[in-house]
Amino acid sequence: MAATTKAMMGLPTSSIGLRVARMGAPNSTMLRRSFAASSRSFVTRARPTIDKNDCLRKSFRRAYAEAAPAKAPAQKARRFRFFRFLWRATYITATVGTAYLAYGVWDLRHPDEQFEPDPTKKNLVILGTGWGAVSLLKKLDTDNYNVIVISPRNYFLFTPLLPSCTTGTVEHRSIMEPIRSITRHKQAAVKFYEAEATKIDPEKKVVLVDDNSDIKGATNKTEVSYDMLVVSVGAENATFGIPGVKEHSCFLKEIGDAQQIRKKIMDCVETATFKDQSPEEVKRLLHMVVVGGGPTGVEFAGELQDFFDQDIKKWVPEISDKFKVTLIEALPNVLPMFSKQLIDYTESTFKEEKITIKTKTAVKKVTDKTVEAEATGPDGKKTTETMPYGLLVWATGNAVRPVVQDLMSQIPAQKDSRRGLAVNEYLVVQGTKDIWATGDCAVAGYAPTAQVASQEGAFLARLFNTMAKSEAIESQIHDLSSNLNLKPGNAAEISNEIERNEKQLRRIKDIKPFHYTHQGSLAYIGSERAVADVSWLNGNFATGGGLTYLFWRSAYLSMCFSTRNRVLVVLDWLKSKAFGRDVSRE
Amino acid sequence: MAATTKAMMGLPTSSIGLRVARMGAPNSTMLRRSFAASSRSFVTRARPTIDKNDCLRKSFRRAYAEAAPAKAPAQKARRFRFFRFLWRATYITATVGTAYLAYGVWDLRHPDEQFEPDPTKKNLVILGTGWGAVSLLKKLDTDNYNVIVISPRNYFLFTPLLPSCTTGTVEHRSIMEPIRSITRHKQAAVKFYEAEATKIDPEKKVVLVDDNSDIKGATNKTEVSYDMLVVSVGAENATFGIPGVKEHSCFLKEIGDAQQIRKKIMDCVETATFKDQSPEEVKRLLHMVVVGGGPTGVEFAGELQDFFDQDIKKWVPEISDKFKVTLIEALPNVLPMFSKQLIDYTESTFKEEKITIKTKTAVKKVTDKTVEAEATGPDGKKTTETMPYGLLVWATGNAVRPVVQDLMSQIPAQKDSRRGLAVNEYLVVQGTKDIWATGDCAVAGYAPTAQVASQEGAFLARLFNTMAKSEAIESQIHDLSSNLNLKPGNAAEISNEIERNEKQLRRIKDIKPFHYTHQGSLAYIGSERAVADVSWLNGNFATGGGLTYLFWRSAYLSMCFSTRNRVLVVLDWLKSKAFGRDVSRE
Repeated sequence: MAATTKAMMGLPTSSIGLRVARMGAPNSTMLRRSFAASSRSFVTRARPTIDKNDCLRKSFRRAYAEAAPAKAPAQKARRFRFFRFLWRATYITATVGTAYLAYGVWDLRHPDEQFEPDPTKKNLVILGTGWGAVSLLKKLDTDNYNVIVISPRNYFLFTPLLPSCTTGTVEHRSIMEPIRSITRHKQAAVKFYEAEATKIDPEKKVVLVDDNSDIKGATNKTEVSYDMLVVSVGAENATFGIPGVKEHSCFLKEIGDAQQIRKKIMDCVETATFKDQSPEEVKRLLHMVVVGGGPTGVEFAGELQDFFDQDIKKWVPEISDKFKVTLIEALPNVLPMFSKQLIDYTESTFKEEKITIKTKTAVKKVTDKTVEAEATGPDGKKTTETMPYGLLVWATGNAVRPVVQDLMSQIPAQKDSRRGLAVNEYLVVQGTKDIWATGDCAVAGYAPTAQVASQEGAFLARLFNTMAKSEAIESQIHDLSSNLNLKPGNAAEISNEIERNEKQLRRIKDIKPFHYTHQGSLAYIGSERAVADVSWLNGNFATGGGLTYLFWRSAYLSMCFSTRNRVLVVLDWLKSKAFGRDVSRE
Repeated sequence: MAATTKAMMGLPTSSIGLRVARMGAPNSTMLRRSFAASSRSFVTRARPTIDKNDCLRKSFRRAYAEAAPAKAPAQKARRFRFFRFLWRATYITATVGTAYLAYGVWDLRHPDEQFEPDPTKKNLVILGTGWGAVSLLKKLDTDNYNVIVISPRNYFLFTPLLPSCTTGTVEHRSIMEPIRSITRHKQAAVKFYEAEATKIDPEKKVVLVDDNSDIKGATNKTEVSYDMLVVSVGAENATFGIPGVKEHSCFLKEIGDAQQIRKKIMDCVETATFKDQSPEEVKRLLHMVVVGGGPTGVEFAGELQDFFDQDIKKWVPEISDKFKVTLIEALPNVLPMFSKQLIDYTESTFKEEKITIKTKTAVKKVTDKTVEAEATGPDGKKTTETMPYGLLVWATGNAVRPVVQDLMSQIPAQKDSRRGLAVNEYLVVQGTKDIWATGDCAVAGYAPTAQVASQEGAFLARLFNTMAKSEAIESQIHDLSSNLNLKPGNAAEISNEIERNEKQLRRIKDIKPFHYTHQGSLAYIGSERAVADVSWLNGNFATGGGLTYLFWRSAYLSMCFSTRNRVLVVLDWLKSKAFGRDVSRE
């Protein structure tokens, strides 16, 4: 019975404990005291029943009569203990998580005062604010250099979620982070100029920059001199010389592209529902063609079909059976970087979603309303098809930017390079001594992906930090050795110090060449499914489906630039889940 | 002592109740049973103490000894009862609120099937998707008419929060609601054409419409015939013939305007920090001029200063003392619709915020970098000042849209009307029988505000619903009276029915003319302060400050179009509070 009592009493104890936890510190002692008092008096009043025999009998009878049904709650109480534990664990995790998040947010919003860097230090100029440049900036000790960042875009863009932006699953500002969030959190101040680098002069060591935005000051062209230069300007869209592509198709590289596509999707829908529109014209307007079977093209096609199935159909029911997405790829299959089974899975999923895939099909010509494509059949026979379209998205191909092209033409060693600046194993541009390149504008033997650019940037940060350190030690050695034997007596001591420094220098200088570690490929394929090819131990782990979609989401979240981005993206996902995507044309 | 026991026991009761509520339904009966059992056994065990005298004495002594310190917790327990009540009330309110919100969201996302309206019914064409048109659509019984909505904008825009959009305090999509959220929730289907009405022909009763968006179908110009027409196309920006305004200033009427301003603010900041920018040029670029001292201009100036003080300053510290906002107003004071003390309060707040107000100042000329304005001094002397600016926002004046101008020129009765379509007390366009007008394009003797347009729209909905009802009764009377005396016998009965119908008809037809009820004026004036002039009983209630700002927020929230808008705006406010406004130029 004592056990029963205890078990029964365990219940109120815990619930008070619970309340204490929820109410916070100030009330807890008060509560604990009051509970101690009340529990004591309960126990006391239970004791007299065994004090005297006659009253014991009676009360025991009564207690026994009541104790029997109380047995079951005792067992249940134990079960509750588990829930209680679960609740407490959740509670504590949530509290700690929120505190951590709040600190992260607070920290991001409150940059410290920065000191101006020593003007005698080297000028390190970084061109670009993409994956390579930002990854370099994040890890760089800015107090070793005068760091100047130049880019026409004053923010970093989390490109993997760009296809989600085209339909409003994620809002564009949620995947942008102002470049000053990084530069202002550096110890030493970093200069940022919002301008485009138009020419690099490796002889005079200057970069010509041009403020090409709408609002121009009296000074809108100038030159910035460098001692060290990192070219991370990325690539531009390649149209492979196919007529009409530049004029009539949308690209998917920048925020502006995503916004334009979003507007055009709804424009096609509205134009299709215009009064007296002919059925063929409705069919044309609602035919969306995506060129390029890489992750961007595939994700965009999936998002587009989702948008239509989950939202547009509901609001504009009159066109519900006329929407069609076609994906065109010149290679024999989509997602060539994925394993065979995932390619098959993607293709069968697209079939379910009613997205048409046309592989081994090359676009030959684009007009304002049609795409002309040449398909190679299994027998090698070529057939030409003309497809009327409403929206055409060009998600394939990288071309060298003019500023990079111009730099290449000035360096004899680069004359055979076609796809960008050829670099050595330390990412130094071949034929130069003080220019490095990362990302899509560099040819280092890797695919033009965010992953590669990001790792290259981080490598350069390590390299530059090391160079600064070793230079400091070298100048120390130089000072020491120039003093050696000038004054009598301490020669042995100085020699020792020189030796120590040189040992340290050798250790520091022993930096390995850049080596890319592939962590895997991910792609969303529509209807809440994704495919993933992840490097796992020494092998590969290929998976596709709904769970992979959750993995895709969490992987992308963890890769986001900042806590702010992460929170905003999660909110956007919840928003588009709860309210659906916005069908306003804007 | 019994009371003490009860009070002490009250504690565990409530905390279990609490837990039950939190855990949800499935566990509650189980828990309640277990508590009933445990409480019963407590009570039983307390009773034997008064059973026999000797054991009573002992136990009483003990109970007494323990009861004394237990007194204090008893009082505390009573206090807890209040907290418990508060907690439960909060809990229940939150649960009910969430359920209500969830239902609202669910309902919004799940429109029912609609029936096609009877083609023999009258064509009711509504031009526009602003305050007047949307308020009319919301209250209209669409099954009485063939309703066709035509507008170049497929969404409703909550204009009062547009100034907040220019700095990113609120994101633009949070204050937009697709027009189909209304039309799809109507019982009978409503047609929507995204096009601009270019001409109204009151003779032939047709509207010429033109799809002037980027993507055009084979049919992009057509005509829509009407039986009844509502013109709610609003007004366009007036430049009063001042040279340069159209070319160089930004307006603040549509979403695109707000986005352009947001981009330009950051463009000015980036251009000011460009390498080797001269101090005068920096000063010019960071001088933001707002023309128009109405609520829009004042709110925008306040938001702009907030953006700078709270965000830009922190991220771009090098320009922190160079940012300046100037508000120009031709009248003797800003916010002319507010009471004197609120005008003074606004002006003193602006002084604190370092916003310069120039009243009695008329803009004479605008170039790409300067504003030329003529100020009238207290002595009536006029002085001309030329101000260099970085951004110029024109927030004043309404002009008649070309389509309305053209319609006016076709109606002889409108030849003296200058500011829009003159309407009678039932909002019928003077000189026509089947055209109504609401909002900024109608001249009804009220200010061109959202409040007026919205009340006019609601009035028209009531009017049209009544007209449909009375027409139905009239045709019934007509049928009855044409049968009268044709067949013998039931003449008296039919006469009675006709009389009954006519009585009903008189009651329905007795609709009062439109009367505008002013509910008040609100304006945000920066640094978390607002001013409000609210109609209260028969008087006026004027207030300004931080609390008014909370009122401003809740009033705007309650006026939002949908639950979706409300949630998104609240999230945006929280986001900009937690993370600050985005300083990316996009």
